[in-house]
Amino acid sequence: MNDALIKEFEAIVGKENVMHAEADRQAYSYDAAVLEPVVPDLVVRPTTSEALGKTVRLCNENALPITPRGAGTNLSGGTIPGRKGVVLLTNSLNKIIEINEQDMYAVVQPGVVTAKFAAEVARRGLFYPPDPGSQAVSTLGGNVAENAGGLRGLKYGVTKDYVMGVDFFDVNGELVKAGSRTVKCVTGFNLSALQVAGEGSLGVINEIIFKLVPPPAANKAMMAVFDSIDKASETVAAIIAGKIVPCTLELMDKKTIELVEAFTKAGLPTDAAAILLIEVDGHPAQVADEAEKVVEIARRIGAIDVRAASSDAERNKIWEARRAALPALARARPTTVLEDATVPRSQIPTMIRAINRIAEKYNVTIGTFGHAGDGNLHPTILCDRRDKEEFKRVEDAVDEIFEVALSLKGTLSGEHGIGLAKAKWLEKETSPATIAYAKKIKAAIDPKGILNPGKIIGA
Amino acid sequence: MNDALIKEFEAIVGKENVMHAEADRQAYSYDAAVLEPVVPDLVVRPTTSEALGKTVRLCNENALPITPRGAGTNLSGGTIPGRKGVVLLTNSLNKIIEINEQDMYAVVQPGVVTAKFAAEVARRGLFYPPDPGSQAVSTLGGNVAENAGGLRGLKYGVTKDYVMGVDFFDVNGELVKAGSRTVKCVTGFNLSALQVAGEGSLGVINEIIFKLVPPPAANKAMMAVFDSIDKASETVAAIIAGKIVPCTLELMDKKTIELVEAFTKAGLPTDAAAILLIEVDGHPAQVADEAEKVVEIARRIGAIDVRAASSDAERNKIWEARRAALPALARARPTTVLEDATVPRSQIPTMIRAINRIAEKYNVTIGTFGHAGDGNLHPTILCDRRDKEEFKRVEDAVDEIFEVALSLKGTLSGEHGIGLAKAKWLEKETSPATIAYAKKIKAAIDPKGILNPGKIIGA
Repeated sequence: MNDALIKEFEAIVGKENVMHAEADRQAYSYDAAVLEPVVPDLVVRPTTSEALGKTVRLCNENALPITPRGAGTNLSGGTIPGRKGVVLLTNSLNKIIEINEQDMYAVVQPGVVTAKFAAEVARRGLFYPPDPGSQAVSTLGGNVAENAGGLRGLKYGVTKDYVMGVDFFDVNGELVKAGSRTVKCVTGFNLSALQVAGEGSLGVINEIIFKLVPPPAANKAMMAVFDSIDKASETVAAIIAGKIVPCTLELMDKKTIELVEAFTKAGLPTDAAAILLIEVDGHPAQVADEAEKVVEIARRIGAIDVRAASSDAERNKIWEARRAALPALARARPTTVLEDATVPRSQIPTMIRAINRIAEKYNVTIGTFGHAGDGNLHPTILCDRRDKEEFKRVEDAVDEIFEVALSLKGTLSGEHGIGLAKAKWLEKETSPATIAYAKKIKAAIDPKGILNPGKIIGA
Repeated sequence: MNDALIKEFEAIVGKENVMHAEADRQAYSYDAAVLEPVVPDLVVRPTTSEALGKTVRLCNENALPITPRGAGTNLSGGTIPGRKGVVLLTNSLNKIIEINEQDMYAVVQPGVVTAKFAAEVARRGLFYPPDPGSQAVSTLGGNVAENAGGLRGLKYGVTKDYVMGVDFFDVNGELVKAGSRTVKCVTGFNLSALQVAGEGSLGVINEIIFKLVPPPAANKAMMAVFDSIDKASETVAAIIAGKIVPCTLELMDKKTIELVEAFTKAGLPTDAAAILLIEVDGHPAQVADEAEKVVEIARRIGAIDVRAASSDAERNKIWEARRAALPALARARPTTVLEDATVPRSQIPTMIRAINRIAEKYNVTIGTFGHAGDGNLHPTILCDRRDKEEFKRVEDAVDEIFEVALSLKGTLSGEHGIGLAKAKWLEKETSPATIAYAKKIKAAIDPKGILNPGKIIGA
């Protein structure tokens, strides 16, 4: 990139917020997905809304690709530059602009860290439920762009269910305002929803209005231990069929339990074939009733042990063990391929059996954990990418996992996004007309194709 | 329209489903909005999905405007033809394709009547919460296209919160598939959400996948009577601030109470300045607690009477009275202008005072009722459109209501849509770039401008 253009960026965001040294650019060439890095020409970090808009405009004027980036924690390559160009960091746009307790909403900049926001909301006596696995570092802008899920999706929904409005810059750097601070709003096209899961390819998020809810008055966490994964998955289906909607209903298979226990020494039963981690919340009487029913169902289906947390410390221990699943698996082998094909929840037993069959067929190691209650499993393949023969088997296994998920009326991705990683699979789930429709919107909104190019619908 | 073209439509949908007589066409020239009728050239009623797609394609090939129409109950002119062309009736596409109890979703055609669907879902032991005022006749396709709200929006959200997927025909009659049967899905652009509140201008809905939830185990309906509307609206704000989220929290002012009582003889207190109709639901213990708190708050702020329904019959009587509000008001004068400007809920007291001031200033009669709990009031102006001088004052009053709503960080429309009626106001709430963005999408998706032309963003 020529010096004159770099100076133009510096004039907008300040010299200290434009990075062009090789080492800096390398740092933004990859994300949490297992994909080849692409080194950008420049890394720009606007610190004001105005500078954000001007940066977008300058990129468009010069036909420079923009890769917006929060914490880069997405798992589908959404923040790997599709073509070189500019990585646009949002992490200095990190103000919580307003938390309105009376009207139960908040207005934030995109770079606010998810957990920090949730904690501040809690301090004001309210609740922001979405809790993606990477919440300790992930940003709210990234959560919206990827429609991040999390452990509480079953009862509380995902990020999209809390987006009341999004202000974003169009490719010309003009501000588009969609949605409202009101619970109900049908003013104009549903453009804020279009930014959700748009992966930054239809606009650059400037501000988000989030719905907040009252926190549950009580909760109860439980762990059910099984000697067969079939019994665990049948318990999941039976809980839902019993019209109980737990806040969280997570599964870990044997491989995951072993690795988590080796990593955390949390006291997990390493001789179990599977465990379910369950939390119910709400009114204290409801919590007591539902916890009792959950225990009864798990025992009836054959849990060999059901333990309830009797203190906050015990409850935290359960959820820390669950949150350790991915890091624990990731330590086992050089490469971790984390999938999130999702099925209607009653298909969980079938899906888990299929995953185990596929692991055997392709001779690959798969640890499976995830949000069993909403059908969103994370089969995680442990491998070494440098071993080409093995990695070919891994790719074949992933392809077959997708095929099974679709045959069960499921979807390619529950919460990780399509990004670069799954774009080639999109047509199989949808239709040629679906891709064509999306491409028409993309071309109209971004004629030069500079907004996070290559994502979702390909180049 | 020439005979050869009519015969082509007849070949697709059958002769009995193509109407071209003057009387038939007149019947589809208007809807529930107070706007000039526009008589279409032809009315076509496909009875199969395939015929629906072919009808759309034939219209596009001949550049014929399409006005999709369910029951025509929308209040913003969404089903008045923007230009002549074809009114496309969806009411023969009225199959409930699947209700999946285990996975808690349903798949329906667009012409299914809302209340019929809700009843069938209830029969299967599940709950479809959205309950727009016109649910007895409105269709689910129309509900999605308008993002219909209703009385339960406060706790349960609106139609968009239940849309998991939408299959729709693009303007060429090709099927676009968006969303999934899974609770979590981030596969591709959020195109199903774009059909929500799209008023049929970005596609013609073929099938909808709705999320269902377990029904609440208990409920309690109450009526609180006030001698001042300020006290009623302060009670609304205090209930929400007390972290209670009732299922329903409705307000009726004096004018509305008087007219409803004259119409229904439901036993409403006609000497009251305002009443609140409140329902809490959920676990029985939670219902008991919340009902007690609601009563305490209402009394503390100065309710002169608070009554709880002690039977289902009494509960039904309360909600029938509320549902009679619009028809009762509509009987009073020849023309009923029903608005739905919406504000953050804490602004309800300010908004109601402003509406009363505006009524006085322009010497118009306004009955106000509506979903106070979510800030979505329905100030209803009773007038006679033939009286030009009066109607000018009505229009000025509506303009000022919008201005106040926007100044309170509210929105033009909570649930009725923009349609033809409010398109001119859209830029004031959003920005020129917002309209430009929407128009680019529209032009890319519908280059001939035939999909419900003139709606939302104008011609």
